Amino acid sequence: MTTTTTTSTSPAANPVAVDLNGADGGPDLVREGAGLAGTPVSLFGGEEITNDEDPALAVRSRETASIVRAAKAVGAGEADALVSAGATGALLAASLFHVKRIRGVHRPAIAVLLPLPGKPVLLLDAGANVDVRPEYLVQFAYMGAAFMEAVHGVARPRVGLLSIGEEAKKGTDEVVAAHAQLAAGTLDFAGNVEGSALATVDVVVTDGFTGNVALKLMEGTAKTVAGAVRDAIRSGLVSSVGGLLVRGRLAGLREQLDPNTTGGAILLGVRRPVVVAHGKSSAEGIANAVRLARRAAAENMVERTAAALEQGGALRSAPAASFASSHD
Amino acid sequence: MTTTTTTSTSPAANPVAVDLNGADGGPDLVREGAGLAGTPVSLFGGEEITNDEDPALAVRSRETASIVRAAKAVGAGEADALVSAGATGALLAASLFHVKRIRGVHRPAIAVLLPLPGKPVLLLDAGANVDVRPEYLVQFAYMGAAFMEAVHGVARPRVGLLSIGEEAKKGTDEVVAAHAQLAAGTLDFAGNVEGSALATVDVVVTDGFTGNVALKLMEGTAKTVAGAVRDAIRSGLVSSVGGLLVRGRLAGLREQLDPNTTGGAILLGVRRPVVVAHGKSSAEGIANAVRLARRAAAENMVERTAAALEQGGALRSAPAASFASSHD
Repeated sequence: MTTTTTTSTSPAANPVAVDLNGADGGPDLVREGAGLAGTPVSLFGGEEITNDEDPALAVRSRETASIVRAAKAVGAGEADALVSAGATGALLAASLFHVKRIRGVHRPAIAVLLPLPGKPVLLLDAGANVDVRPEYLVQFAYMGAAFMEAVHGVARPRVGLLSIGEEAKKGTDEVVAAHAQLAAGTLDFAGNVEGSALATVDVVVTDGFTGNVALKLMEGTAKTVAGAVRDAIRSGLVSSVGGLLVRGRLAGLREQLDPNTTGGAILLGVRRPVVVAHGKSSAEGIANAVRLARRAAAENMVERTAAALEQGGALRSAPAASFASSHD
Repeated sequence: MTTTTTTSTSPAANPVAVDLNGADGGPDLVREGAGLAGTPVSLFGGEEITNDEDPALAVRSRETASIVRAAKAVGAGEADALVSAGATGALLAASLFHVKRIRGVHRPAIAVLLPLPGKPVLLLDAGANVDVRPEYLVQFAYMGAAFMEAVHGVARPRVGLLSIGEEAKKGTDEVVAAHAQLAAGTLDFAGNVEGSALATVDVVVTDGFTGNVALKLMEGTAKTVAGAVRDAIRSGLVSSVGGLLVRGRLAGLREQLDPNTTGGAILLGVRRPVVVAHGKSSAEGIANAVRLARRAAAENMVERTAAALEQGGALRSAPAASFASSHD
C-alpha cells in the first residue's frame, strides 16, 4: 500500500507523505496528482476516516487508516511533510497525535490564502479553534508571518488582527487583549483590520469561528458576483468577438480565485508541514498541495516559526507534558 | 431647528424624525433627501455626536445633540420612527435611552440586507452586540423574521444560524445552545448555514462581531471582484459596442449592491422603527432610509415583532426595571 515515487528534484530529501483518501476524485486522482508534483512522495492507502466520525476517537482507534499511517510516517521522520485531501478534523487530530505541536505552541491553526485577486493574503485560523484565548491569537500572528516569509518570500510581513473597527479597543475581549500584546511585540503589526481592508496586510489573524465563516463568505460572494457578472455579460453579448475576449479574461480571474492554484490550506504550529488539500482538488490541485508541502519543508518553515515565536516572547512557558517528549 | 414637512401620503401619521447630522454630504443633503421621501418628516439639527466620543456618555450629557432631540421626539410619541446617518454608537445609545427596548427584549440588534444579487437576505446582528448569549441569538431570529414578514412581505421567512458546519453541534457553545432552542421554536428554522450558503435562507442570525466582520468582508469582496472584472473587461474591449452593453449591465449589478438602494440598516428590538442610514448616503439614499422607516411603522413591524417573540416563547421573563416603565 505504500509506494515511494522518486522523481526529479531534491534527491537527498525524505518524501512527502500523501494520504490517498479523501479527494472527491478518489485515490486514483490523488495518485496521479502526487506523480505530477516533481518531488519524492510516499503514498498511503487504507481505510478512510470520514467527516461523520469523531476525529480524535477515530484517529486513536484506527491504526490502519490512511491518514494515521501517513501522519505516523511523518512523526517517525520517514517523511518531511504531510498532505491530505480527507476530513480536516481527522487530519488535525492525526497531526496533533503523531506529528505533534511545536514546543510551546498552544494550538495549531489552519492558514489559508484568501481568494482575492492580486497579492497573497493569509488568513488564520480558518477553523481549527472555535474558541480562542488572546495568547492563541498572538501565536497565530507569529506563525502566519513566519509562513509568509518562508514560503511566499514576503520580507517582514504586515500582520493585522481582524476586528470591527480600527481602534485598539474595538472587538471582543480576546481581540482587545491580543492587540495589546501584538503592539508590544516584534512583528510589523498593523493593528486591527476590518473585513473591507484585508488586502492592506499580508496576514489576517482571527479565531477559527470567524475565520471559517469569513473564508466561506468570501468564496460564496466571489462566486455569486462573478456568476452574476458572467450572466449579465452573456445575456448581452452572446457570440460577439467582445464576448470571447471577456470570457478569456474572466477565466484568468477564476483561476486566481481557485483553491487548486494555491494547493490548499496549511496547518501551522506542528513539527512538520501539513497541507490540507481541498476535497474538490483536481490532479493539478493535489500536485500543488504536494509542492506547497515540499516548499515549506525545504524553506525550514517550522524552524523559522519556532524561532519567530521565541524571539517574540510568544511561546508558552510550560508546554503540556504529553506533547513535549520528542523532536526537540 | 425643527421643521415638519408634510407632503403627499399618510396625512394621519406622525412624521418620521430625521437627524440632520452625520451624512458625509452634510445637513443640506439630508434635508434634500428627506424632502424626496414623499412622507411627513421632522428634521432635527443641533450638535453632532461623533464616533470619537463615548456614545452612552455623550447621549446622556448632551441634551441638545440632534440625535438626542430626534430620539426623544420618537420616545414621546411625536414621531413614528427615527432615521440617522450619524455615528451608529450614538444612534444605538439614544434609541436605548429614549425610544427604549420592547418589553422582554434582551438586546436590540442591527439588521441589514446583504449586498447579494437576487432576493433579499437579512443579516443580524451587524454590530450592536460584540458578545452574545444564546437567548440573544434566539431573539434576533424572531426579530429578523418579523421584519422580513412585515417590511419585505416574505411569508414565513426561513431563518438560518450562521456557523461553521451544518450539523447542530458545530460552532461556538452559544451557537449550539441557540440552535437547540430555535429547533424547538415556532420559526421556519433552517438550522446552521455556512458563509457560502447565505442565499438559501431569508434571515441569517449571528453575533455582532461575526456579523460586522462578515458584512464588511462581503462588501469588500464584492467590490474587489466587480472591480477586477471591470478592469479585465475594460482592458480588452475599450470602446466596442460590446463594451457599452457590458457597462450598462454592470451598472445594474452595482445598483443591487449599493446601500443607497436599500435605505440602510434597521435597529430591531426597540419600540419604534429606527433606521441606520449609511454615512455615504446620497440624497436618494436618505429618501430610501425615510421610506424604509415609514414602511416599518405603517406595517406595524414593532407590534408584529413583539407578538412573534411572545408566540415563540422567546421573551425575557423579567424585563430590566429601567426599560419597563413606558409604552407598554
